[in-house]
Amino acid sequence: MSEHIVSSYDADLQGLRQRIAEMGGIAEKMLVDSVAALARHDKPLAQAVIASDPRLDVLHREVEENAILTIARRQPLAVDLRETISAIRIVGDVERIGDLAKNIAKRALAIGDDFQPHKIVVGLRHMNDLVMAQLKDVLDAYAQKDTAKALDVWKRDGAIDALYTSLFRELLTYMMEDPRNISFCTHLLFCAKNIERIGDHTTNIAETVHYLVTAETLAIDRPKNDRSIDTTIEAGA
Amino acid sequence: MSEHIVSSYDADLQGLRQRIAEMGGIAEKMLVDSVAALARHDKPLAQAVIASDPRLDVLHREVEENAILTIARRQPLAVDLRETISAIRIVGDVERIGDLAKNIAKRALAIGDDFQPHKIVVGLRHMNDLVMAQLKDVLDAYAQKDTAKALDVWKRDGAIDALYTSLFRELLTYMMEDPRNISFCTHLLFCAKNIERIGDHTTNIAETVHYLVTAETLAIDRPKNDRSIDTTIEAGA
Repeated sequence: MSEHIVSSYDADLQGLRQRIAEMGGIAEKMLVDSVAALARHDKPLAQAVIASDPRLDVLHREVEENAILTIARRQPLAVDLRETISAIRIVGDVERIGDLAKNIAKRALAIGDDFQPHKIVVGLRHMNDLVMAQLKDVLDAYAQKDTAKALDVWKRDGAIDALYTSLFRELLTYMMEDPRNISFCTHLLFCAKNIERIGDHTTNIAETVHYLVTAETLAIDRPKNDRSIDTTIEAGA
Repeated sequence: MSEHIVSSYDADLQGLRQRIAEMGGIAEKMLVDSVAALARHDKPLAQAVIASDPRLDVLHREVEENAILTIARRQPLAVDLRETISAIRIVGDVERIGDLAKNIAKRALAIGDDFQPHKIVVGLRHMNDLVMAQLKDVLDAYAQKDTAKALDVWKRDGAIDALYTSLFRELLTYMMEDPRNISFCTHLLFCAKNIERIGDHTTNIAETVHYLVTAETLAIDRPKNDRSIDTTIEAGA
């Protein structure tokens, strides 16, 4: 490869990485702000979260198209090809994280000033803190090509699933205690589910980082602790 | 382009299309069977749905990797490049449809033999019939490169969103009537949400077909009728 081609390829990659970093920053902010808007009944903040989603969609399409043009023009091999494939996969996950945060913001607007049990809000915030740390760490792992760090994120996700299951049970109990709780608890249930799914997307990114660095797919099953799906609670129990 | 290269490229595309058709068939079956398993309390059927998901994941990875290798090796331009990009996007959606059907199957196992209100089961089946027709039509539109058919799917999705919103309200009402309904109604709520999201994935595929055929992105906003997110129901109302 001539130096000219190499440097064009590097410039392409640099452009992809910059856009991915920008997307990561937007998604992180959307996630923090959406849960803050929910907990503080802050409607303008919820609206700001919703308003920032289109930028994420635009960047997603740009990265996808530029990565594929890079592959077509430069015919990268081995690690360079994995780099472009990984870019496409990661922006898909980051874009979905933004969608899920936007959905939380919409539910924050719907719930409005309804009373929210303190214990539930604390639980949601705790879940969100864990997921935020996962997202930050996995984006760092990607920037630094640090597969150990990525693997650590991947393993930690079980704790988020476990927390989700306990919040799920808690919410069902509140609903059974008083029918007036059902409507907003349903929204909170979907919010908790969204945060849990954001955690799943961080593990997808961790798998992509592992593939990028090692050229291998993580074969072992990730530890899953989401037992909410098997949960049925008897009324009055 | 030499004839040799052209025919290798065609063989690559043929391989991609075959895998996508197989994936579409698996996803359609998973969707039908998951809702049938739920309605008929059919646990072996639910387990069969869950067992068919790994094949979808394998095919997804294969298409993604082969499409990208095709781009790197053949450097396709214009419609040929769009063809490979579209393959990557579509299998992402089909794989997610399978995941959502698997989740319905898991909830069918969790609900077990709990009583399910007839009206809700009818509603879920009706929603599922509409989504199944969407999925079938959009996969046909892709196979036939029929952008009018794709656009029709894209427009029809509003009806599914509207149906979801009414089911959502219905389920909330059942929960308020009797706390013994809360646990299984919560699972049915997530099932309905999953079907609604499968509908969204069919519209994504419709957008991809439009891009494949016309090289243009659908710019206008899709009619959304999911009002469940703004729905709060007063207990006793």
